[in-house]
Amino acid sequence: MTTIGHLINGEIYNDNNRTQDVFNPATGKAEKKVSLASKATVEKAIAAAQEAYPAWRNTPAIKRARVMFKFKELLEQNADKICQLIGQEHGKISHDAAGELQRGIENVEFACGAPELLKGEHSKNVGPNIDSWSEFQPLGVVAGITPFNFPAMVPMWMFPLAIVCGNTFILKPSERDPSSTLYIASLLKEAGLPDGVMNVINGDKEAVDTLLTDQRVKAVSFVGSTPIAEYIYATASANGKRCQALGGAKNHAIVMPDADMDNAVNQLVGAAFGSSGERCMALSVAVAVGDEAGDALVEKMQQAMQSLSVGEYSNANNDFGPVITQAHQDKVVGYISSAAEQGATLVVDGRNPKVEGYEDGFFVGATLIDNVTASMDSYKAEIFGPVLQVIRVKTMEEAMQLINDHEYGNGTCIFTRDGEAARYFSDHIEVGMVGINVPLPVPVAYHSFGGWKRSLFGDLHAYGPDGVRFYTKRKTITQRWPSSGVREGVSFAFPS
Amino acid sequence: MTTIGHLINGEIYNDNNRTQDVFNPATGKAEKKVSLASKATVEKAIAAAQEAYPAWRNTPAIKRARVMFKFKELLEQNADKICQLIGQEHGKISHDAAGELQRGIENVEFACGAPELLKGEHSKNVGPNIDSWSEFQPLGVVAGITPFNFPAMVPMWMFPLAIVCGNTFILKPSERDPSSTLYIASLLKEAGLPDGVMNVINGDKEAVDTLLTDQRVKAVSFVGSTPIAEYIYATASANGKRCQALGGAKNHAIVMPDADMDNAVNQLVGAAFGSSGERCMALSVAVAVGDEAGDALVEKMQQAMQSLSVGEYSNANNDFGPVITQAHQDKVVGYISSAAEQGATLVVDGRNPKVEGYEDGFFVGATLIDNVTASMDSYKAEIFGPVLQVIRVKTMEEAMQLINDHEYGNGTCIFTRDGEAARYFSDHIEVGMVGINVPLPVPVAYHSFGGWKRSLFGDLHAYGPDGVRFYTKRKTITQRWPSSGVREGVSFAFPS
Amino acid sequence: MTTIGHLINGEIYNDNNRTQDVFNPATGKAEKKVSLASKATVEKAIAAAQEAYPAWRNTPAIKRARVMFKFKELLEQNADKICQLIGQEHGKISHDAAGELQRGIENVEFACGAPELLKGEHSKNVGPNIDSWSEFQPLGVVAGITPFNFPAMVPMWMFPLAIVCGNTFILKPSERDPSSTLYIASLLKEAGLPDGVMNVINGDKEAVDTLLTDQRVKAVSFVGSTPIAEYIYATASANGKRCQALGGAKNHAIVMPDADMDNAVNQLVGAAFGSSGERCMALSVAVAVGDEAGDALVEKMQQAMQSLSVGEYSNANNDFGPVITQAHQDKVVGYISSAAEQGATLVVDGRNPKVEGYEDGFFVGATLIDNVTASMDSYKAEIFGPVLQVIRVKTMEEAMQLINDHEYGNGTCIFTRDGEAARYFSDHIEVGMVGINVPLPVPVAYHSFGGWKRSLFGDLHAYGPDGVRFYTKRKTITQRWPSSGVREGVSFAFPS
Amino acid sequence: MTTIGHLINGEIYNDNNRTQDVFNPATGKAEKKVSLASKATVEKAIAAAQEAYPAWRNTPAIKRARVMFKFKELLEQNADKICQLIGQEHGKISHDAAGELQRGIENVEFACGAPELLKGEHSKNVGPNIDSWSEFQPLGVVAGITPFNFPAMVPMWMFPLAIVCGNTFILKPSERDPSSTLYIASLLKEAGLPDGVMNVINGDKEAVDTLLTDQRVKAVSFVGSTPIAEYIYATASANGKRCQALGGAKNHAIVMPDADMDNAVNQLVGAAFGSSGERCMALSVAVAVGDEAGDALVEKMQQAMQSLSVGEYSNANNDFGPVITQAHQDKVVGYISSAAEQGATLVVDGRNPKVEGYEDGFFVGATLIDNVTASMDSYKAEIFGPVLQVIRVKTMEEAMQLINDHEYGNGTCIFTRDGEAARYFSDHIEVGMVGINVPLPVPVAYHSFGGWKRSLFGDLHAYGPDGVRFYTKRKTITQRWPSSGVREGVSFAFPS
Repeated sequence: MTTIGHLINGEIYNDNNRTQDVFNPATGKAEKKVSLASKATVEKAIAAAQEAYPAWRNTPAIKRARVMFKFKELLEQNADKICQLIGQEHGKISHDAAGELQRGIENVEFACGAPELLKGEHSKNVGPNIDSWSEFQPLGVVAGITPFNFPAMVPMWMFPLAIVCGNTFILKPSERDPSSTLYIASLLKEAGLPDGVMNVINGDKEAVDTLLTDQRVKAVSFVGSTPIAEYIYATASANGKRCQALGGAKNHAIVMPDADMDNAVNQLVGAAFGSSGERCMALSVAVAVGDEAGDALVEKMQQAMQSLSVGEYSNANNDFGPVITQAHQDKVVGYISSAAEQGATLVVDGRNPKVEGYEDGFFVGATLIDNVTASMDSYKAEIFGPVLQVIRVKTMEEAMQLINDHEYGNGTCIFTRDGEAARYFSDHIEVGMVGINVPLPVPVAYHSFGGWKRSLFGDLHAYGPDGVRFYTKRKTITQRWPSSGVREGVSFAFPS
Repeated sequence: MTTIGHLINGEIYNDNNRTQDVFNPATGKAEKKVSLASKATVEKAIAAAQEAYPAWRNTPAIKRARVMFKFKELLEQNADKICQLIGQEHGKISHDAAGELQRGIENVEFACGAPELLKGEHSKNVGPNIDSWSEFQPLGVVAGITPFNFPAMVPMWMFPLAIVCGNTFILKPSERDPSSTLYIASLLKEAGLPDGVMNVINGDKEAVDTLLTDQRVKAVSFVGSTPIAEYIYATASANGKRCQALGGAKNHAIVMPDADMDNAVNQLVGAAFGSSGERCMALSVAVAVGDEAGDALVEKMQQAMQSLSVGEYSNANNDFGPVITQAHQDKVVGYISSAAEQGATLVVDGRNPKVEGYEDGFFVGATLIDNVTASMDSYKAEIFGPVLQVIRVKTMEEAMQLINDHEYGNGTCIFTRDGEAARYFSDHIEVGMVGINVPLPVPVAYHSFGGWKRSLFGDLHAYGPDGVRFYTKRKTITQRWPSSGVREGVSFAFPS
Repeated sequence: MTTIGHLINGEIYNDNNRTQDVFNPATGKAEKKVSLASKATVEKAIAAAQEAYPAWRNTPAIKRARVMFKFKELLEQNADKICQLIGQEHGKISHDAAGELQRGIENVEFACGAPELLKGEHSKNVGPNIDSWSEFQPLGVVAGITPFNFPAMVPMWMFPLAIVCGNTFILKPSERDPSSTLYIASLLKEAGLPDGVMNVINGDKEAVDTLLTDQRVKAVSFVGSTPIAEYIYATASANGKRCQALGGAKNHAIVMPDADMDNAVNQLVGAAFGSSGERCMALSVAVAVGDEAGDALVEKMQQAMQSLSVGEYSNANNDFGPVITQAHQDKVVGYISSAAEQGATLVVDGRNPKVEGYEDGFFVGATLIDNVTASMDSYKAEIFGPVLQVIRVKTMEEAMQLINDHEYGNGTCIFTRDGEAARYFSDHIEVGMVGINVPLPVPVAYHSFGGWKRSLFGDLHAYGPDGVRFYTKRKTITQRWPSSGVREGVSFAFPS
Repeated sequence: MTTIGHLINGEIYNDNNRTQDVFNPATGKAEKKVSLASKATVEKAIAAAQEAYPAWRNTPAIKRARVMFKFKELLEQNADKICQLIGQEHGKISHDAAGELQRGIENVEFACGAPELLKGEHSKNVGPNIDSWSEFQPLGVVAGITPFNFPAMVPMWMFPLAIVCGNTFILKPSERDPSSTLYIASLLKEAGLPDGVMNVINGDKEAVDTLLTDQRVKAVSFVGSTPIAEYIYATASANGKRCQALGGAKNHAIVMPDADMDNAVNQLVGAAFGSSGERCMALSVAVAVGDEAGDALVEKMQQAMQSLSVGEYSNANNDFGPVITQAHQDKVVGYISSAAEQGATLVVDGRNPKVEGYEDGFFVGATLIDNVTASMDSYKAEIFGPVLQVIRVKTMEEAMQLINDHEYGNGTCIFTRDGEAARYFSDHIEVGMVGINVPLPVPVAYHSFGGWKRSLFGDLHAYGPDGVRFYTKRKTITQRWPSSGVREGVSFAFPS
């Protein structure tokens, strides 16, 4: 059985530390092992990044950007292989993996604009003959810690931008599905990146804690669940690092009485069940305003869900695949059951899907639950499975209050035709990413990704313009030249 | 004896909690008392700020800015009174206080540009007929905690910008010299600021800890010493707040052999001894490259220092005043003595200045110490007194290594005529604010203030463009309208 | 009878050239005369501006901005006097004049942000150790030529920004109502502006042509009618100047069937008749989509217009005043008559308003014309009077086609509740300033004002960010320092 | 003999209008013909561009940018072929052509950042519940007219940016060397650009005048000589188009007494003689401050020039090639002779170079002329040949006065080590692009290219951020939604 290693200083490295199984969630079988880095291995990576830093920092931004231009080409050329690696370990259907990869590539495209993005601010004559300007300089060695659900995209929210800004990088991807990430990172060398600028460490808490406490690591970007995000943020901050830590979500869509219902249902099906709902932007709660809207929504959803198909990644007819582990499957099923027990209506029950040939896979079918209330366990938690819950309210204010009361504030959406409703909603909702008739309002790569409340810890959002600020620090220079020397001939005698 | 209270919801409030003496450092006598807020009092202020928030947030930025236009007028009209209050409690000479106030006003001027500064980013057609834009929305209730050395300026690094961004504010100024700060804050009401938007709490650790842990406070800006800054940053971060905490400094000037020496000395006198050296940007170490430069520097400094006069704030002929407390006076004198004991040369000794009529004042005279080395206690610590230490090195690289090895990285300066030397220095020095022939490279109000290394904890610098980002959070909205309704007559029948 | 002179180099100057009568349009009587500058007088102003330029250009932006901070105070203190001067010569009611002044002051407020607005772009390491930055430097002497309809506001679209950018200015206001403009300009001296930086020339074509052809004038901003704008633009361009020339308008509002009709009518009354319709953003055509909307609109407009009162400027109960001249009154009346003759329905006829005590004033009453068509003379021309014409169409596309076919493209508006209709309209309408339920979509001072098609000639819009670019030119500096000199001791021997 | 045609709507088109010979300047022989487009042919291209516009305008910016990502790949893959085509018709040595192509590609790289570059400005709450934002929309059909000296680079200053901004384009390249330009344009189709978005018209004045007067063309970018630039600017402006017209240059380098002379000479050789001096940024005048600097400069230049080799494009050992035509060769030689006749010292005479095997080629050797004065014809004119003239002055002020008095203000440079001299120079020199020890200060692609005085007509510089503004127009939208409809249930009854 293959053991997946680390990428340090341009070479694959295996430290014979502990290992962990990597499963194919569609078969339920462990097909590979992944090495879990020791503290020493992580420090080896940090040392490599540290050594590569001075030369990379001094490389002009346009040259750093050209590595990303080439990297984009290589990602596109090797897209099929990447999607296959994602499918085998994460389970998502190839077209979904291709979508993920494309969103990742968009961040590489943004990073290609580094020379423009890194422009500083220049002020002539802040005083008489005194000029001042601010530069945005790299931080040094920075780290990223990423989750299983987007093994290609989320790492590419981080390292392309960090690297074009002049930093060197250490990535600790999820140990559940590390292969696509490692392969992607290896393409950077082919794209011309000097060894040591990008390093990948597979591992668990030992690796993470080393990154969080080593004084050579200047910043940490994290995406994962809220309790871990909170730990990462507090630990990194207490160790003097800058940190952005993105956590969990519970994304609501308000369905207004004037919504284009067919369109809304169409959108909700993809947003709720795509990638088995294992997305931090998955729409997991629909809030119907008025019973007419609620009845129509539930009926049309039920219909639309009949054609959904769950299965193995390589079959393009499937809509979504298994969840990531046996334990997670149990958890999702548990939440569905609890909703039913606590009084909700189980309209479509996905607890026992039949997936022929994959009877041991970690599958959960698309599930629709009506008449959910705010006090149910299934409402409070982030389920991270293919489950859409419907709450019915009487007014838009009531719907908004629900959202504003929830601990998370990642994404949200409203379905309406009304300009005033949309504007009021987007202004007053306490959520960082807002969709108006857009159910998955993930910002494009040239904006930035970030939730509010307990969905993000830190000042700056991920990727986009905020990412540039996160991966650079400001230096302000104020300059006055002393009374003229050579200009007025003080130092040099001119022939008479 | 007057007891200085708090400003809560537009009214002066005194909670009869503990009090502390406020000294006139020139006379050495306690002339007032200041109330130290209880937890309940701080919570009263937080509640006031919380209540004022929704209406203030919804006030158009231009209207918020107009309060600052008026506030600038009032600060200018009342400048003399403010300088007097500063002089009585802090001790700095009136012209120095006027300079401080002016730098504070510059931050108010910058805040007047709020409508421009708060512009978001708008993208048409991020997809077909899909638009996306990012807004910068206020955070809610935010707090500032400020030091004794700039009772007017440092608070104005914070609250004008925080307030024009739509936040409501709680300021905890230094309990050593609170009167000018309180008076300044009271002018905001006259400028038209609604009650509760700006609140001032005098206090000590009890007040600080309440601000750091109350969940209604969304962000904390701090300026003070590094150990406290570190505590503030770790505590605020662990409580889920955004935080910027500015700490100590040890600012070096490199004097190159080609420097315009008269100009350099001129600049150094002000930068080292102005405000008794109680500035986080004070130049406390001169690094002479080559003994010729060193000898010339020491000789000319010695000469220039003869005309310096230390004394009481209201005498405009004085150059600087007392230090802040008896304890601090002892500390400064202790460092001078230790340098002499550890082998440095005490060229000008300010340990026993005579200030007629103010024999009990906390005065230390301007002090020059030559042949200092990196291992001396006086070099390692931030003395925060009128003491300039000279280190002699052989090369510019050696000088830069000294600076890069120091734990602080606030400000630094090079004196040279040479373009290459200046550029190399500014590029490779690990310091956030760099002067080229400018000894106090405090960024102007439209840039941002921030050190590197252990001089600042946080992602974003204080005031200026970074201040705007610190006091706002990004919300990204993605909008698509459903297929045409009214436009194509779906909903409305037109008469035929 | 007073003769109004010029402001040159800080002094009022009268050149005894030709003069012209200045009327009070409410009484119909000439009450003052205005001097019309000779070529020599204009050249005297240019020379003054030229001489003041070098010192003003070198004044730090923050100091230039502080003149504007003070100027704002003075404008607010003298608002009543300014409104009176406007009323006496232009005729607009005092509350309308106050509104105009306020919009002018907003441009002064924007100009106060000069230090931020003038920041250049700085790029570190465009090549190895090569830096490059762009500065925005002033142009030199620039000129503004402004119309009668906003004697306070339109000049303030220009000179505050031009001046804070470091230029010196020559203003040629309208000779119909020059007094308020001249008075406003005179306040700048009190605000601390050095003599010669701001100059005012009253005059006619002789003055204009001197400004357009003198090589010392680097740029011309113009607001007026399209034929003159076209002449100004072609002449200034052929003389090597940069030019922005704003011309005429015909602003349409589309009233959709789902519009909030009461609100729409409310807005239209002000937008069509305010300031007697003598605004380049006046809404002069309402396009009703569907006859239901058309009927409701006409009926409600007719009702709303009953309470409108036309009269003299100082009576605050009046809604609007006279038009500017006898000739213009005749022209407006002529267009009304022609519409009736060409088949339109004259719903409310304002041709013979009775204004007691002001029987010789140039008054036209509020007029509503229904069933107008695109071929009528009254539709093709810019009437610039208190006349609202209604066109009825069947579809929104038809309404938009009308607008896109008109030669002007200044402002437009749609009344609807529907998000999709609003977005489609704003995207596809060939007009520079678009309102969604906002009938006079004049951009705020921190955006920029400009029409499309034959409403503006030039690349950059007026005031706001575009104004900054118009009044500055880019200089790009690329810098590399030769191999180290003083740094490596090439030039200086260090003692061994 | 091949006849080079046009590229219209994705197809090569030959209209059998007039033709003109295309020479190989190294052999002096006409080896191809180029078709000169009739008015009808140009109108066909305009019609194609007009038709392609609506769909291209509506294509999301990121998709437009992806065409440029692919285009960059294709340019790199086909670099050799492009350099060969340039060499055959222009004559520049392959390594020089490769450099030109690389600078062109850098503009394509910049254009890849379109989504970021096209962001508009968004303002929340410009008034209560009123939002306003500015979009930068494309102009429509725009045209570029480019010179012979950079057949690859200068067109790429224009069309990549114009196209990613959403415009459609018509390029009229130089008829002297059209093949590389046409080939480059043809690669866009392979890169995925829809037909009609990019069109190339070969031609002469007939074609140019059609572009300048056709109302469908909205903007014209031009690079060429000043008299033509002036004609283009005046004509395009009078026809209501926006225009930027870049003209001639006379670029001076000041050599200060403290310059690193070896470095300066090294740089000057390339900057004066590279590409035979046929560059609008060529350094054609060296101004030595003081005779010591002058003598050293002339002596070292003379030495350095001995190793220069002029010859045919494909021999990589050659430093530069022939000039473009026989007539131009005669003109350059004539200026050299006139300088000698008018009293200058001909130090190195390049009038009769021997190029074995290419005796009929249009070669001029590297020429150095000392003791030139401002009154000589050779000084006043732009020679555009491999000729460096030396002027000797006594002071830096005198040197700067010379430059500021010249009619052109394109580029300039100073050689010095002194920070103050460099800063004074860059601040006060009336030139748009300034080098400090950089002899060819062509701004990088993410800044903008533009001279001052009679070197550029127009408000905005070419390419970079100014290019984005030139190829877009601002639309400002102000939006207020009427009092709530669906939100408060006015329109929809909720079940009770």
